[in-house]
Amino acid sequence: MNYKMVYYIMGQICKVAGLAMILPIIVGGIYGEHHVVTSFGIPSVTMILLGILATVKRPKDKTVFSSEGFVSVAASWIAVSAIGALPFVISGEIPNYFDALFETVSGFTTTGATILSDVESMSKSCLFWRAFTHWLGGMGILMFVLAVMSSNDSRTMHMMRAECAGPNVGRLVSKSSVTARILYGIYMSLTVLEIILLFCGGMPLYDCVIHACSSAGTGGFSIYSDSIGHYNSLYIEMVIAAFILLFGVNFNLYYYLIIRKYALAVKNEEVRVYFGIIITATAIITANIVHLYSSFGDALRHSFFMVASTITSTGFATADITEWPVFSQTLLLLLMFIGSCAGSTGGGMKVARIMIIFKTGVKELKYIANPRAVATVKMDGKPVEKDVVRGATSYMVLFMLLMAISLLLISLDKYSIEESASAVITCMNNIGFGVGRFGPNGGFGELTSFSKVVLCADMLLGRLEIYPLIMLFASKKR
Amino acid sequence: MNYKMVYYIMGQICKVAGLAMILPIIVGGIYGEHHVVTSFGIPSVTMILLGILATVKRPKDKTVFSSEGFVSVAASWIAVSAIGALPFVISGEIPNYFDALFETVSGFTTTGATILSDVESMSKSCLFWRAFTHWLGGMGILMFVLAVMSSNDSRTMHMMRAECAGPNVGRLVSKSSVTARILYGIYMSLTVLEIILLFCGGMPLYDCVIHACSSAGTGGFSIYSDSIGHYNSLYIEMVIAAFILLFGVNFNLYYYLIIRKYALAVKNEEVRVYFGIIITATAIITANIVHLYSSFGDALRHSFFMVASTITSTGFATADITEWPVFSQTLLLLLMFIGSCAGSTGGGMKVARIMIIFKTGVKELKYIANPRAVATVKMDGKPVEKDVVRGATSYMVLFMLLMAISLLLISLDKYSIEESASAVITCMNNIGFGVGRFGPNGGFGELTSFSKVVLCADMLLGRLEIYPLIMLFASKKR
Repeated sequence: MNYKMVYYIMGQICKVAGLAMILPIIVGGIYGEHHVVTSFGIPSVTMILLGILATVKRPKDKTVFSSEGFVSVAASWIAVSAIGALPFVISGEIPNYFDALFETVSGFTTTGATILSDVESMSKSCLFWRAFTHWLGGMGILMFVLAVMSSNDSRTMHMMRAECAGPNVGRLVSKSSVTARILYGIYMSLTVLEIILLFCGGMPLYDCVIHACSSAGTGGFSIYSDSIGHYNSLYIEMVIAAFILLFGVNFNLYYYLIIRKYALAVKNEEVRVYFGIIITATAIITANIVHLYSSFGDALRHSFFMVASTITSTGFATADITEWPVFSQTLLLLLMFIGSCAGSTGGGMKVARIMIIFKTGVKELKYIANPRAVATVKMDGKPVEKDVVRGATSYMVLFMLLMAISLLLISLDKYSIEESASAVITCMNNIGFGVGRFGPNGGFGELTSFSKVVLCADMLLGRLEIYPLIMLFASKKR
Repeated sequence: MNYKMVYYIMGQICKVAGLAMILPIIVGGIYGEHHVVTSFGIPSVTMILLGILATVKRPKDKTVFSSEGFVSVAASWIAVSAIGALPFVISGEIPNYFDALFETVSGFTTTGATILSDVESMSKSCLFWRAFTHWLGGMGILMFVLAVMSSNDSRTMHMMRAECAGPNVGRLVSKSSVTARILYGIYMSLTVLEIILLFCGGMPLYDCVIHACSSAGTGGFSIYSDSIGHYNSLYIEMVIAAFILLFGVNFNLYYYLIIRKYALAVKNEEVRVYFGIIITATAIITANIVHLYSSFGDALRHSFFMVASTITSTGFATADITEWPVFSQTLLLLLMFIGSCAGSTGGGMKVARIMIIFKTGVKELKYIANPRAVATVKMDGKPVEKDVVRGATSYMVLFMLLMAISLLLISLDKYSIEESASAVITCMNNIGFGVGRFGPNGGFGELTSFSKVVLCADMLLGRLEIYPLIMLFASKKR
């Protein structure tokens, strides 16, 4: 393991995170919240200084293999979360450190689960920081570092792979720093576009920024306890639903559109299946809930919004799904597991992975029926590499295993099996709300500190897709 | 597909099942229940006649590949369940056919879930048939046919593989009929031994037979609504716990012991892990529940019995686990998923499969850390074939997929997500009781007929390990 390079990368990340904390200070300045200068200033300066210290000397050996990539990603996500929680504690708005940590991890991992019972009482700068962690975490902090670092080392691809979600990351261009810049460019443009469109719908600018950041990361933090339902505006709901769906698409697709390789974009099997699932699920749920609403249009509106919010694991709400029939709730639960496209900011297992797993199952059946038949798993018409297939299935298996262990640990708390399971599922899939006690209105604040730490680990495992974290704790010097 | 051979095999199975139905008539004769002559006689004669018709001409082409094996196993399990349910309906003891079908499928698949709310009111012959379906289904009906058929075609191994549980069936001797006879010999001897030991403990002979049949198949049907707790005897509980654990061990092990290949028996990694899990889980649960009981011995007694009953997916009960801490309940739930050894009569995912999946996960991590490293999955010190590894992971994935579909279908019924999930989990893992409404005291009778059919399919999918049933409905003539 090239530790010098790991420290160097972590230092870069600390600098970026420290600089990012200046933004809430500006927000505080605008809204006259002067106490934020200390509460954000201290952690910000600490991080920048630590970052400068660690990056003063660029290591000679710039070798970065996948293990270095995984370890630096895991370590920096933990470090950034641990320090990113400090402003909440220093400002006294979330006095308990474990609560603040939970909120910050939930933000960076774009889970959107909250320990706050009265979100309206928070200061505007803290609410901004909360939503901005979604934006930073959505595309990835390390990805941002790669975008600003002019690295000419193509090996940094390993790091991108560690942070990026889904079974495979295609390199858009040969240099990973250019790829990162393209991805962040698309990400930023979409966010700005959403802010503009929301503003046109009559939403106050501050709210626009918050909700755009939150939808970009498919996170789900809102500034109202009734979430997007607060505005009761069809236009705003449709803009947000459309954008969270767009942020749930593989970003490579936008790149193909930009460079006018339309054929490559259209050919993408995953995206077609993703939208197919959305349309089917919306239709089924609309039919299932139509009797609860005054008109078909109303049912369709809520059904579409909630499908978009769950499949992308955002967690915004316009309706109380616990009042819906159990069938619709179950369907939404399955959508949470499926998740959005690989290489997007959404959570869950990812559509591509589910497709590979499903195709492998079919192949296995063919093989059992006729062992002499040769069957290959194909995606976009091309055979999928064996490593990718094996990776997808063992990912799902590891996911289930870790979910079982977490469930066992959370069951030590005071909740029923169903409630514990709901908390673990929502955190590992980075969704933000479960059923029952941990439904859309939170309730995570009542957990013990131990349970909160377990759920923080689950959120990180879900966001970083397991391997980097395991690698961090299992890695040996060699 | 060699359909003639499939019909021939199904005919043999019908004959055996028809003959098996004579036993409850004898029981009825002993206890003066004369109505059973018609209720069991009609289906019995029908099955024997159908069987004779189908086997009058032995097909010339005796080719049996895995697809033939899978299809005949699936088709005959369905046929035997459909006809095996008739005595309950004809006798009027379970007037609704779907209820009777549920009870019979639950019997043959050794699930042990019941729709009966008042088991004590049933006739002795019907209760015997119910327990005897456990015994027949435990080792497999087709396996029994193989044991009595003097087939000299070694290809019938394919059929054994289709019915036998776990990732791999080792052939004990070169001829599959001899293997089947050895396995049934061991099975029968253990059952008789249990009857004798229970009888020595003062249990009435009828009860001994019922509970021995039920434990042999690790099914769980009892003749009292408070199950084994009814006897309130430490001796009886320990005998039953010991035997269900023994029936949960890979039967190859007993064969090795018989032929004095002790080294092979001791080397078996799966069995060691199986007992390791049992001891660990018993210790943890005892510590967790000790404050609920008057003495440490009492806690240990109930903990050991419930661990044995759940890991083997039997479903006998001596304590009401819903009163135990959630942590213990969660641990038991995980044991249900793990299940017993491959090649035993127990249910669940099977220890061997979990081990292979776990080892594959570890291998995957090693591979990600260092793609040049060569890592193989090993069991009993020997590398596991790639097919077996792939089979184990895709089995788990298919299992989860089917569980999700079933959950969606059951959610159309009137229950909450948690209750529906509990029903699906207990049926697919062939356990017999879940948590809450579908806890140890049943409650399956209240489901709609549609839900009952879905759960019947789940029980069969769980018992036959998915592939045969899918093969039956997906197979094309070729």
